[in-house]
Formats: sequence, structure tokens, C-alpha cells
Amino acid sequence: MENNELKQKVLSQAAAAKEASRALAVMTSGQKNKMLEAMAAALAAHAKDILFHNEIDVEAAGDAKISGALLDRLTLNESRVDSMIKGVQDVVALKDPVGELVEDFKPSEKNLDVKKIRVPLGVIAMIYEARPNVTVDAAALCLKAGNAVILKGGSEAINSNRALAKIIYEAGVAAGMPKGAIQFIDTADRSAVNELLALDRYVDLLIPRGSEELVNFIRKNTLIPVLSHGKGLCHTYIDKDADLKTALDIAVNAKCQRPGVCNSMETLLVHKDVADKVLPEICKMYDSDGVEVRGCPLTRQIIPKAKEATEEDWNTEYHDKIISIKVVNSIDEAIAHINKYGSQHSDAIVTKDKAAADKFSAQVDSSGVFVNASTRLHDGSVFGLGCEIGISTSKLHARGVMGVKELTTTKYVVIGNGNIRK
Amino acid sequence: MENNELKQKVLSQAAAAKEASRALAVMTSGQKNKMLEAMAAALAAHAKDILFHNEIDVEAAGDAKISGALLDRLTLNESRVDSMIKGVQDVVALKDPVGELVEDFKPSEKNLDVKKIRVPLGVIAMIYEARPNVTVDAAALCLKAGNAVILKGGSEAINSNRALAKIIYEAGVAAGMPKGAIQFIDTADRSAVNELLALDRYVDLLIPRGSEELVNFIRKNTLIPVLSHGKGLCHTYIDKDADLKTALDIAVNAKCQRPGVCNSMETLLVHKDVADKVLPEICKMYDSDGVEVRGCPLTRQIIPKAKEATEEDWNTEYHDKIISIKVVNSIDEAIAHINKYGSQHSDAIVTKDKAAADKFSAQVDSSGVFVNASTRLHDGSVFGLGCEIGISTSKLHARGVMGVKELTTTKYVVIGNGNIRK
Repeated sequence: MENNELKQKVLSQAAAAKEASRALAVMTSGQKNKMLEAMAAALAAHAKDILFHNEIDVEAAGDAKISGALLDRLTLNESRVDSMIKGVQDVVALKDPVGELVEDFKPSEKNLDVKKIRVPLGVIAMIYEARPNVTVDAAALCLKAGNAVILKGGSEAINSNRALAKIIYEAGVAAGMPKGAIQFIDTADRSAVNELLALDRYVDLLIPRGSEELVNFIRKNTLIPVLSHGKGLCHTYIDKDADLKTALDIAVNAKCQRPGVCNSMETLLVHKDVADKVLPEICKMYDSDGVEVRGCPLTRQIIPKAKEATEEDWNTEYHDKIISIKVVNSIDEAIAHINKYGSQHSDAIVTKDKAAADKFSAQVDSSGVFVNASTRLHDGSVFGLGCEIGISTSKLHARGVMGVKELTTTKYVVIGNGNIRK
Repeated sequence: MENNELKQKVLSQAAAAKEASRALAVMTSGQKNKMLEAMAAALAAHAKDILFHNEIDVEAAGDAKISGALLDRLTLNESRVDSMIKGVQDVVALKDPVGELVEDFKPSEKNLDVKKIRVPLGVIAMIYEARPNVTVDAAALCLKAGNAVILKGGSEAINSNRALAKIIYEAGVAAGMPKGAIQFIDTADRSAVNELLALDRYVDLLIPRGSEELVNFIRKNTLIPVLSHGKGLCHTYIDKDADLKTALDIAVNAKCQRPGVCNSMETLLVHKDVADKVLPEICKMYDSDGVEVRGCPLTRQIIPKAKEATEEDWNTEYHDKIISIKVVNSIDEAIAHINKYGSQHSDAIVTKDKAAADKFSAQVDSSGVFVNASTRLHDGSVFGLGCEIGISTSKLHARGVMGVKELTTTKYVVIGNGNIRK
């Protein structure tokens, strides 16, 4: 596409989304659920089509020799399509956040009724990479919260995403969805992202999901508010009063259950009083699971085969079967380490001492603090929030797991009877 | 100051603020209120000093021939110092938002206790222009919410701000405040702002208060989240079922009571069925108040002396005794006009028809919608929120009047007993 043509196309899609968002904002939960149910049914009816188009992407990816992890995220199968459908049905079951009376107060002197009401944000743009299910998840969640959505997926998934967007769009419109409500940016041209970033007049929120590079590029190049889903450099601290069996279970689960995701652990901190009791057992499990151990000098006294951990290790999100371990002198040293090197994502303490747990919970500056529980539990489905958009590492607006409520804002509706400012 | 020296200075102040924020975050309401009370007392004890230093700024401003409005905002007198003190005392009386249990749920299968708890943001940087009272208001509100604050005021107020910051800092520290908690950037060098904008590692939120140019410059040049206090292009719509006396009162109040502020009205929309009844009366009042009227063709048929309103008028925040008036065919036309030209700040409808009021409230996409009340009432003190930081025109995190609660975030604290991810 010519550059100017692309610009016009993206602009007109964003303007159409804005217009549709006005209509969506005043639709009832029943109307929105009817559209979502139609989408789920259409996905089921077209499962074969979806797999057919996904295969085109997967073959092209094979030719391009992309990484195994990326290929895995790209690939759909019957069970993954079923999960997508189940995801949309879960969104139907979620409570509609729109219309919630968040606050209601009557300022004494003024005889005014001030209501703070939950309302949709307007237009949400999702910019994401290989996973085609994001097309469906994001559209469903945005719609439930009364928003129009602009979808820009990765070029490697373009055939899958196009098919999915077409299926849910047509089903939605047939069930009464405003025509502009789902906008799929149908190009592999990455400059479409740049065009989108300029449209702060139409887009109310940008949600990038993908690499740190993608997220940082977006944050640096737009005036549209961005909710970042940044890195997860998560810690577990084993306190001197830890139950040792619990410590072992959590240290192994947080590192090994799925090392490639953001809420898995990268650094284990152990109080010096219990280090020689727990570290041999834990490292035996790591060893049998193929996890490489890098340790501080005290760790290496206990685990001689551990490699030396450098300053860089404390700063690294491995996303892999590698762990750095540090023996600390106190809970204060553990907290200071986490606040210095962590990414304010998810951090855990293992302790039987309530005072230590409270101190850790209060002083660790992270979106989720876990007491005697694995950081891997920081997840929308575990928390019972249904689908999730992701885990926000922003402190503003939404922090930690984001659900449908975080896709809304509020407005003040003030009812008077001729009130004026004196 | 050398450029490198300035950079180091700002960096060390931000790092000190971050460290202090850790201590502040776990202080009790009692401890924080004691500091605030000490600050109020110190301001009262040093009122003469404050006026002395302010006079230096005012004299320099007189020499520099700044505008009358700016000079007014810069100038302190006894009564304004009293208001500042009263403001701090009001903050003492506010409910401490920190520690609030926002949500508490127990996901069924997991035997977990998930609490969402309100916590301070950390470090808040205020960048503001001439008004010295912002130094005190912002410090008091940030402190109440458990945050450290970095203050960068306008160079024209530097002597006033330095004196105020010193007084509240010393009083706070004597009452137990962590030493880094209030950081005053003591330079008239504007490049200090640029240094601050680069410190996303230390600063959690930037709040610019000032001209649209200042706000836009900041939004474009930082990765730190920004809460904008943008322009207020506010409307009043007089519906066909309006009470005409109410319409007159509100149209006059919203325009004339204080034309230079963000929640005053710039454009009046009138339903065609009542235009010839209300416009002559309203314009008579405008005339006697020295307000210049610019109108659409239908307005000018009724008010022949009105000037012609152009497309630019609908887009202009006059901040002055000028009003643009448009006669509309329907409430839908009024809503569409507001959503097209407005700044999503504060917009009002005058009507006795509840269905019209509900439609307007639902469809006008503004931070505050006023039914039979003046837009001038969009104000923290009117709403009973005590001091205010400003009126946010952002949709994320805080929308409309911001109080102390909007200076906080939340964290999840998850209590388990050895729970792991299956």
C-alpha cells in the first residue's frame, strides 16, 4: 500500500471505531452478550476455516525458520480453538462493569447529587505479536466493557488474525453490533503501527503485548495513554522462619512450572540461617529439572557446583531454566534487593512469621506480593477474573492482573436544580 | 550551574525522594498528620518571611512587565497565606486513603486470599507555573497519600517557592518526616525539567500544571506517566424543555462568574424551539457584563448585533469575556457538537425532561456532565473533596476532579499456605 493510502485507511478505521464507540457505550449488557454469544457460535461453526488459515501462517513461519517458542505461540489446533470459544463464553458470564455507581455523594451546602459512574473508555487499540487468540480475547473483553477495538496483530499471524476478525465481526454485526466496533488493521506493513500511534484524537488507550522493545517503542512514540505489560523479574525470599517443605515446593514451582512467562521466578533469596538447610534440597530439584544455578559466594559455599552470579544476573529476566541465588543477612536486605533489582511485577515470601509477612507485603513495591504462595499464581484465571488482558506493570490506572473493569473509566454526573457557583 | 552538575543534582534529589518514599509508605495517618500540622504551624509563624520573599518575585515580575493575570497568580498577601495554611489543615482532616481494602476475594478452588490494597504511588513530581500556593498544596496532598514529592515551580516564583519549601521541609523533618520526602528543585534553569523527565526509574507520576504548551512538551518528552490537566472547552445546552429562569442563571454563571478558568463555559447551544425566548434575555445579561457574543446565522437573526461565529470559534477556549452561541435542531445535534468540538472537560444541560437529561449524561463523553447546574461547580472544594490537585482530562487513572485518593495506586497481597500453580 502507498504510504498515504495506508495513513488514510488507518485514520478512517480509527474514526469509524470512535463513532461506533458512542453507540456501544449506551448498549445494555443483554445486547452486548448477544453479540458475544453469536461470536462464540460463529467461531465454533468455522473452526475448520480457522485452522486452514492458521496453517498458511505456520507454513510460512516454518519457511522463515522462526524460533520454536514463537512457532508454538502462533500455532492453533482444535483444542486451542475450543479454548478461544470458551474464553468468549467466559466473557459473557462476566459482570458488566459499565454503569456501576462507583461513588455517590451529596456535598452538604450545595444540594447537589454527585455520582461517579463507570463508563467505557471509548476506543482501545491492541498491538500484539504472534498469538492469534489475542484477536478474539481482546475483542471480546473490549466489547463487554462497551469499547470499540482496533486490532493490529503480528505479520506472522496475519492469515489467522484476518480469518478470526472476519468471523467475529460478521457474527457481531448480525447480532446488532455497530459496524465500526471491531477494526482489524489488515496489513503486514509495520508502518501501520506508526500511523495508529499518531491518532490520539481517536484512540483512548493503547495496549501493547509483546517484547520489551515493542512496548518501549510504543511508549516513546505516542501521546496516547499506554498500559505497559513489561518485564517480570520476580523473586522468592525464603525467610528464617520458613516452613522448609513449603519453601521447596514454591521455589521449584515458581522457577520450573513454566519458565518462559512473566510471573516465573528469576532470583531466589535465602536467609543465611536456613540457607544450608534448604539450598541443597532445592538445588537437587533444580538439577533434576535441568535448571542452571548461579549463586553469590555464600551460595557457592553450600552448592559448590553453582556458577558465579554477577551483577548482571540480578538484573536479568532469564525467561529460561536458569536461576540466580543470593544468601541474605536479613529480611531488610531481601526487601532492598527486590526493590533495587526487581521489576515491580510479582514477588513472594515464604515464612511462618506473620510480622515478617506483613513487613514484606508492605515494603516490597510490586504489583503482586505473595505470602507462602508461588508467583506463578499471579494470573486472571487463578484470581477468578475470567479472561485477562495481561498483567500491568504500570502503577497508574491498572496494576497487576487486568480484567474487564480495567478497560473502563469513570465520569461524574452531577444533578442539580439550578445550582450556580457563588 | 554546569549542565552536568545540574543533571547530577536532579538525579540525587530524585534518588533521595525514592528512598524516602519507602519509609513514608509505611507511616501511619497519625505520623503523617503530625508532620502536616507542624507545617501549618510553621507557615503561620513565618507568614512575614513568606510575604517578604514573595515581594522580591513580584517586584522582579513588575520589572519584566508580565501580564496582569500572571502577576495576580504570583502575588501573595496575608489572606492568601491564610488560605494556604487552611489548605494544609484541610488535608489533615481528609481520610487517609492508604491501606484501604479495595477488593478482597477468595478464588474458589485455590484456598487463596487475594486482597487489593490501596498504597502510595511512590514519588510524584509536580511541574507548575506562577502560583506559589501549589508548592504547599501539592506537598501536603502528596504527603498525606504517603508519597515523596519533587517540586519544580516557575522561575518567576522562585524566591516565594524556595521560602515555602524550606519552611514546610524543616517543620516536616522536625516532626518525623523522612529527609528526602520533599525535594525542591532550586533553580530557574528550565533544563532542570528536562533532567527530571528522564528519571522514569525514580519518578512514578508527573503532574504538570500550566499552559497547554507546557503540558504537551512534557507528554512528548518523557516515559514517566503524566496526568494532564488540559484545556476546558465547556458547553451548556439549553434543551427545548428547559426552565427558562434556570437556563438564564446557569448560562450567565458558567460564562461570567470567572471566565479565565478551565470549567467556565465557552459555547452555548440552544434548542431552536426556545432560542427566541431565552437568547434575548441571556444576551442582555452578557451585554451588561461586557461579554462579546459570536453567533451562528440563526443566533444572529435573533441577536442582530452578535458577530459571526466561525469554525474556529467552536474550537476556541477563549478564557475571556467572549461566548459563541449556536442554535441546534435537536439534543442529538447538541451532543454531536459537544463530542466533536469539546475537550471532554465539563458540559451541562438545562432541561426538565428526565429522558433528555439521561441521554445527555450517557452520551456526552466528558469527565463531568452537569444537569441543571453550572459547569463552574466542577471543583474539588464544591464536591467536598478538600484540596484538589486539579481536574484531570485524562481518561486513565483519574478523570475529573482529583483528590488525595488519585495520588495512590493499589497492590495485590495474596496470602496462601504453600499454594503452587498446577
